[in-house]
Amino acid sequence: MERVFAGMWLAAGRADQLDRTGAFVRRDVAGASVLIVRAADGSIHAHHNVCRHRGTRLCTGASGTFQGSIQCPYHAWTYDLNGRLVGAPHMDEVPHFRKSDFPLHSVQTDVWDGHIFINLSPAPSPLRQQLAGLPDKFAAWKMADLRLGHRIVYDLKANWKLIIQNYNECLHCPNLHPALNKLSHYLSGENEPLQATYMGGRMDLRPGVDTLTMDGKCSRGFLSGLSDVDVRRVYYYAIFPNMLLSLHPDYMLVHTLWPIAPDRTINVCEWHFHPQELARPDFDPKDAVEFWDMTNRQDWLVCELSQAGISSRAYTPGPYSNREDLLYAFDQMIVKLHEQR
Amino acid sequence: MERVFAGMWLAAGRADQLDRTGAFVRRDVAGASVLIVRAADGSIHAHHNVCRHRGTRLCTGASGTFQGSIQCPYHAWTYDLNGRLVGAPHMDEVPHFRKSDFPLHSVQTDVWDGHIFINLSPAPSPLRQQLAGLPDKFAAWKMADLRLGHRIVYDLKANWKLIIQNYNECLHCPNLHPALNKLSHYLSGENEPLQATYMGGRMDLRPGVDTLTMDGKCSRGFLSGLSDVDVRRVYYYAIFPNMLLSLHPDYMLVHTLWPIAPDRTINVCEWHFHPQELARPDFDPKDAVEFWDMTNRQDWLVCELSQAGISSRAYTPGPYSNREDLLYAFDQMIVKLHEQR
Amino acid sequence: MERVFAGMWLAAGRADQLDRTGAFVRRDVAGASVLIVRAADGSIHAHHNVCRHRGTRLCTGASGTFQGSIQCPYHAWTYDLNGRLVGAPHMDEVPHFRKSDFPLHSVQTDVWDGHIFINLSPAPSPLRQQLAGLPDKFAAWKMADLRLGHRIVYDLKANWKLIIQNYNECLHCPNLHPALNKLSHYLSGENEPLQATYMGGRMDLRPGVDTLTMDGKCSRGFLSGLSDVDVRRVYYYAIFPNMLLSLHPDYMLVHTLWPIAPDRTINVCEWHFHPQELARPDFDPKDAVEFWDMTNRQDWLVCELSQAGISSRAYTPGPYSNREDLLYAFDQMIVKLHEQR
Repeated sequence: MERVFAGMWLAAGRADQLDRTGAFVRRDVAGASVLIVRAADGSIHAHHNVCRHRGTRLCTGASGTFQGSIQCPYHAWTYDLNGRLVGAPHMDEVPHFRKSDFPLHSVQTDVWDGHIFINLSPAPSPLRQQLAGLPDKFAAWKMADLRLGHRIVYDLKANWKLIIQNYNECLHCPNLHPALNKLSHYLSGENEPLQATYMGGRMDLRPGVDTLTMDGKCSRGFLSGLSDVDVRRVYYYAIFPNMLLSLHPDYMLVHTLWPIAPDRTINVCEWHFHPQELARPDFDPKDAVEFWDMTNRQDWLVCELSQAGISSRAYTPGPYSNREDLLYAFDQMIVKLHEQR
Repeated sequence: MERVFAGMWLAAGRADQLDRTGAFVRRDVAGASVLIVRAADGSIHAHHNVCRHRGTRLCTGASGTFQGSIQCPYHAWTYDLNGRLVGAPHMDEVPHFRKSDFPLHSVQTDVWDGHIFINLSPAPSPLRQQLAGLPDKFAAWKMADLRLGHRIVYDLKANWKLIIQNYNECLHCPNLHPALNKLSHYLSGENEPLQATYMGGRMDLRPGVDTLTMDGKCSRGFLSGLSDVDVRRVYYYAIFPNMLLSLHPDYMLVHTLWPIAPDRTINVCEWHFHPQELARPDFDPKDAVEFWDMTNRQDWLVCELSQAGISSRAYTPGPYSNREDLLYAFDQMIVKLHEQR
Repeated sequence: MERVFAGMWLAAGRADQLDRTGAFVRRDVAGASVLIVRAADGSIHAHHNVCRHRGTRLCTGASGTFQGSIQCPYHAWTYDLNGRLVGAPHMDEVPHFRKSDFPLHSVQTDVWDGHIFINLSPAPSPLRQQLAGLPDKFAAWKMADLRLGHRIVYDLKANWKLIIQNYNECLHCPNLHPALNKLSHYLSGENEPLQATYMGGRMDLRPGVDTLTMDGKCSRGFLSGLSDVDVRRVYYYAIFPNMLLSLHPDYMLVHTLWPIAPDRTINVCEWHFHPQELARPDFDPKDAVEFWDMTNRQDWLVCELSQAGISSRAYTPGPYSNREDLLYAFDQMIVKLHEQR
């Protein structure tokens, strides 16, 4: 938790969800509760959800809109959307007290192509460094333009690392995901060699298949700007530690992982579409939602079985196949993180 | 728990609840379960709820009446109400066994003006020492005469110390308790300097307000013997570690706090009235009960938000206002208790 | 857990429950999950329920039948019923990989007169050594012939040792089990001196009582081969650490204990009868089931009260009567186990 979730940039939602001044989402992670807020000047700020007076949690809603300021329910200390303390009843009687000394503790925040990231570390290296080649690689999808079509929140009895491992190999697909394997052969595509902060690859759609939906047909237009090659592929990238980004010809699927306990993870899964498609009177994301919800649940089952099994006294690590090369690299990275100082 | 709840006198109920021989209440605190019992000679005894034979819990009821003795359900070892072992089947065959060697482990008990106190420490200093000036201060209310009118048990997700802190300042009142503030101005009254074992002060009723009820009217007579000054006030005293005593012109409100976990406390809240009032055919405590139940729930909300917030990785203690002087003194006392070897 | 439940032979069910090739039961104990399986050649094998590839739990059912092999739901690694790895997709591409190196981790298993035992230790001493004189002692009951008539699973908030202690003395019977005491006097019978790995004794049926049922009548024939003496007795043996074997003139009652936590134990209670009786059209085990279910629940109550009481800060061990001699010996054995190396 300290080195990974309190040290790295975490995907924390979409900028378009903060669609007006005061709009916020709350994210609880690594012993922190964070409010991500749209300020009056349009900038995005993230604050610890803890009053500077007596530590009261300021807000318990998962999302919503602050009316111009954030007020503590206890003694009415009041902060502007940028986190500055602007009201503190009776504190003017206290010698040497200055409101400017007590802004909300801030959390670093940045945005990549519509994806908000936060970082609990006080002085993190830039987000761009963590993203490395990804902004260029996925520029053509114009992700910032896309808008939420559907969201499902899953509660898994498994460590977040098992979910990342599950995401990064398709050796399990013929056995576990016959429907997926019918649309996209498990040996198709290619993995990119593991990067320091992400890993992924692509798989090819089978001939006659347009995208990943229940029947392989696509009732939507493809995202404009994609190459002829990219509309025949699905890209799967795990951006450490908590974002799984799946780019389809016509939609973007994003999982964000929120560890709750060593054996429990909340997984927020969102389907994003182009606003032109969302605006159509007959827009219906069901074909994509049903397909991945079914496939997700197959995956969560084996993630939970793995969690149970590796907790056994009899567990010993087994050999990987060549199709699980990314997992080996991921394991090495985690080991290295633990060995650091 | 060891220094505070297993070392100090704890308010544990009212003597009048033990209204006949054998009547008991059970209190579970600091890893102990205690039976407080009215003996045949009218005296009050407290015993650990643990059979001396094989450790069986003798009684699981919260209150009730023992029929002359306390019998273990397992092997029928039997104790009189004073805790003496009076029956132990087949133990007479055991060489050197003497029943007089195996009374119930006893718990110290004492009574102040109708309030029962227990102390888990084997040789505590006297209750009077812990109470210091309180018996004189509140003699006029003749608390021993009062009788229970209503009880509500609250289960709070907050440390007991946060409840004590909440009780001892009214800076939060205008924001959190508008109804209370309308009846009794939050800056009225005065605090007594912190004592070693209690802290408190008084607040004044606003002109035209008779007592703390939903409408500020009093449908009961004032307690006889109160001075003209005292019938215009409400006294709020936190008697460490677990009693909150709120004396109104016409009733007594008592909270007793029972820590269950570092972040959880059971709060037993009781409204006590004069028996003459209770005896009236039209007696109805609703006006006082509703007022404080509403106010309590407002307080519990912020206590729970504080518990959540100070558990955050971002929490740092903030500055107190001059209106929170008792809290600072309380913090100092807790620190000192922890420093005592 | 390590020395007792992971080191000793554990009663784990009945061989007749594995009534066909592939039939299995799952037992979770001491941080392990174990599959006990009937192989094609009729032998019984026990395997850790953990795939050798990535640790996935293979099976979550409590019992059932494998169709010829055991397949991991994740990547389809497949084991035969003897635990040999027979399929591992894509692993043939991995240099030096040999399926014969990755059988399921095995668990020792053996059978005594129809009772299956497992042992988590890699090289345990033989089951016969743990059973010592019991196979001879109880040969006349021909336990292997008996078949399950009824099963009740109890979930107790008590340590397994308190259940063993409760089982091995009847001093509590007159107080707690008046119905049992009416059928079999609590001072009747005799205990065998404690053995290294079991303890027990017998009690006599009162004149006119045929067996332990609600009315003491026996609607079944006695087990053939019992002596005139044995049909007037009930034998109660605790075979450490998890089997309670109660032999009646006409049926066998078996408890197996499965510790879940220091203060929680699953107790599987089974009534076994002779197949000739089970085959009768009017067979009804209700008289025996009701009697022991009632008596069990009385026992579980005091076991749970003991668990609560000995967890108290005030608990001190008390004196045993002469009727609790086996318990003292059991305590000594547990102490000795803890002192080993």
